[in-house]
Amino acid sequence: MYPTPDSSPRPWIEIPADSDFTLQNFPFGIFETGTLGARAATAIGDFVVDLAAMQELRYFDDLHLPRGIFEQPYLNDFIALGPATWRAVRKRLIALFSTDGPGALRNYPDSQDEVLHPHSEVRMRMPVYVRDYTDFYSSEEHATNVGTMFRGKENALMPNWKHLPVAYHGRASSIVVSGTPVRRPWGQLKPGDGDPVHAPSRLLDFELEMGAIIGQGNALGEPIPTAQAEDHIFGLLLFNDWSARDIQKWEYVPLGPFLGKNFASSVSPWIVTLDALAPFRVPGPKQDPPVLPYLRAEGDRNFDIQLEVAIEVPGYPEQVVCRSNHRYLYWSLAQQIAHHASGGCNLQVGDLLASGTISGPTPDSYGSMLELSWRGSKPLSMPDGSERRFLQDGDVVIMRAFAAKEGLRVGFGEVRTEILPALEG
Amino acid sequence: MYPTPDSSPRPWIEIPADSDFTLQNFPFGIFETGTLGARAATAIGDFVVDLAAMQELRYFDDLHLPRGIFEQPYLNDFIALGPATWRAVRKRLIALFSTDGPGALRNYPDSQDEVLHPHSEVRMRMPVYVRDYTDFYSSEEHATNVGTMFRGKENALMPNWKHLPVAYHGRASSIVVSGTPVRRPWGQLKPGDGDPVHAPSRLLDFELEMGAIIGQGNALGEPIPTAQAEDHIFGLLLFNDWSARDIQKWEYVPLGPFLGKNFASSVSPWIVTLDALAPFRVPGPKQDPPVLPYLRAEGDRNFDIQLEVAIEVPGYPEQVVCRSNHRYLYWSLAQQIAHHASGGCNLQVGDLLASGTISGPTPDSYGSMLELSWRGSKPLSMPDGSERRFLQDGDVVIMRAFAAKEGLRVGFGEVRTEILPALEG
Repeated sequence: MYPTPDSSPRPWIEIPADSDFTLQNFPFGIFETGTLGARAATAIGDFVVDLAAMQELRYFDDLHLPRGIFEQPYLNDFIALGPATWRAVRKRLIALFSTDGPGALRNYPDSQDEVLHPHSEVRMRMPVYVRDYTDFYSSEEHATNVGTMFRGKENALMPNWKHLPVAYHGRASSIVVSGTPVRRPWGQLKPGDGDPVHAPSRLLDFELEMGAIIGQGNALGEPIPTAQAEDHIFGLLLFNDWSARDIQKWEYVPLGPFLGKNFASSVSPWIVTLDALAPFRVPGPKQDPPVLPYLRAEGDRNFDIQLEVAIEVPGYPEQVVCRSNHRYLYWSLAQQIAHHASGGCNLQVGDLLASGTISGPTPDSYGSMLELSWRGSKPLSMPDGSERRFLQDGDVVIMRAFAAKEGLRVGFGEVRTEILPALEG
Repeated sequence: MYPTPDSSPRPWIEIPADSDFTLQNFPFGIFETGTLGARAATAIGDFVVDLAAMQELRYFDDLHLPRGIFEQPYLNDFIALGPATWRAVRKRLIALFSTDGPGALRNYPDSQDEVLHPHSEVRMRMPVYVRDYTDFYSSEEHATNVGTMFRGKENALMPNWKHLPVAYHGRASSIVVSGTPVRRPWGQLKPGDGDPVHAPSRLLDFELEMGAIIGQGNALGEPIPTAQAEDHIFGLLLFNDWSARDIQKWEYVPLGPFLGKNFASSVSPWIVTLDALAPFRVPGPKQDPPVLPYLRAEGDRNFDIQLEVAIEVPGYPEQVVCRSNHRYLYWSLAQQIAHHASGGCNLQVGDLLASGTISGPTPDSYGSMLELSWRGSKPLSMPDGSERRFLQDGDVVIMRAFAAKEGLRVGFGEVRTEILPALEG
């Protein structure tokens, strides 16, 4: 099925043992430097690889890519070339960085200088222009936790939850890349029985999610069967769906979240392909009751991707507050996509479908402060002696994701975000 | 304030008495013909006016517009030039089509042939690339009707409704222009106490709305005060927010509408500027309780725009089923925009902010079948002898909007949509 450690190709470039960017990975992103404009990249070990320079140096000539396809501010046009092209480029990259591949890049230090940039010397940008953004709610543990807090244990899951992957449309324009600070939003808060006030959110939270980037769309009116659904995915990224719990609580009936969510969401700069993640496929949780036929999907549709969230208080070492896993998701990507298009909604290249908060079964695997502090009742202790019920100004939230087994490792890098104080009133 | 009929400039082109496209209007849109590619247009009387041809013929030379600005598939780049440019172009159009303006176009039949196309000979397209789409819920009558049906008269309005303009994010990719047929969607329906089934929607409905197109954005994190909010609007259009009531009912808790809405929304091809609508400003309903300071807005913020919905059963004359008015909206556009950006969400050129269904105080002014037939309990009689609780396959839904007073008239044309049967199972 996939290369085992013994038969795996080996890279000629040194890759640190804990690197997310191995010969199995080759994710896609967009970077710029002080002198180079926005362009497409992949990553290996400690280096960002300039794909525009590689095309210029004719490493992709026989792949017949359009001129300048990598010299653009977003990956969308490259993605629109289709799965055969993404696969051919990744395969070529694996070959060029393998000791037993063609020596073209390995034997030309001048080319290497032009192509390889240390991560620290580039600025990563938003990898895609997100056309439409949908947020699912696909972790049973998360939905149960939130439901238990707000409606009690007996009514934790809504009656529809196990019949369809609940989702809502989110705001595409305010999605930002890792490294972009996020400002605490103002909003209407409703304190107890009092009148609503307009004030900065007091209950700012992260949500640990993964997002899928759509690589192939469907025409308006034409559903996508589960069996073909994954063909529509370009890859996955790490996603922090910021939430202002107090704003959301007052505004969300009856039409769902709005200002409680749309001030920002943060993504990892790297999109990892499903091919790179293939060795890490696992079955999802058993679905009971059985789902309707249009949601049935065969095969291993989840991924064993380890997730963690850390909070860094400036001046102190970061503290991991959550360890979760993509495998916990009740609804698979194939089911999300099939459901999304089942009424005819047209998905398009660059759409982002986020998973919803991914919580696991144990309290240290909950993917939000709301759950970790159980609505503020169990504050977390921080290295500086302070406590956290929700996020404070100056906190840096770091999310990481990687899959690893038998010497293979494929990671997403991180989403790192500093919380700025609210604007003055 | 604005020209009265006596002092108004008069057009040299014949404008039928009931035309939406008068010398006061000059809306913007995009059209194409069998031989001409997509390009920007305005309309006067029975004619669509080719703005690309007018630029080519040098009627805009002193306005210093970028070359080819009107020869594009969407208006977004033109809109991004800013309000001073939109105003200058509209003013120039008023002058060129007035008897007392410069004779440039009036005296050159050759130029007229190149510039003027009968409406019937062009195909109108989506006027803008909608970046993000937000749907408000700003009609008190509509929210009260729906709330009464589902929660009873005592709890009709949610506690937040009079404190903030409730809204949710909608699907941008499935917005289509008038003339595009809409297919009845499949979805999960939950019949009474039974298990959910996957079937075509049985409760397909229109929603009569107006939409605002954003003409100037704000930076992420920077709110927009109500006093400046209208400066961010390029213009208004007519909007039909299709709804599958049965799909929505089962799916919408707790995160709001999804497949019940995202199969399609329909817009008018013409966007009417606020300048054109200035003579029709009226105060909105009194807001009680008083709104929080960030939502306070001075002046007349609503518009006396008459709205109607007709249903045409093929082979029979159309039947008007609803007459409403934009003036009924409780929350004004200025308040919607200020609220939307109040947490820092960045609006962008081409965003569409829809009003929510605009219902008036009387039963014949309700803006959806759900309300007109009062959840199916009061069916409407159609000219072919059939009854309508909700929409049937083959029905053509036509929405129209215009403002008129003292000899002035400004209209939006129509949104006309045929309902196609659901795909075979």
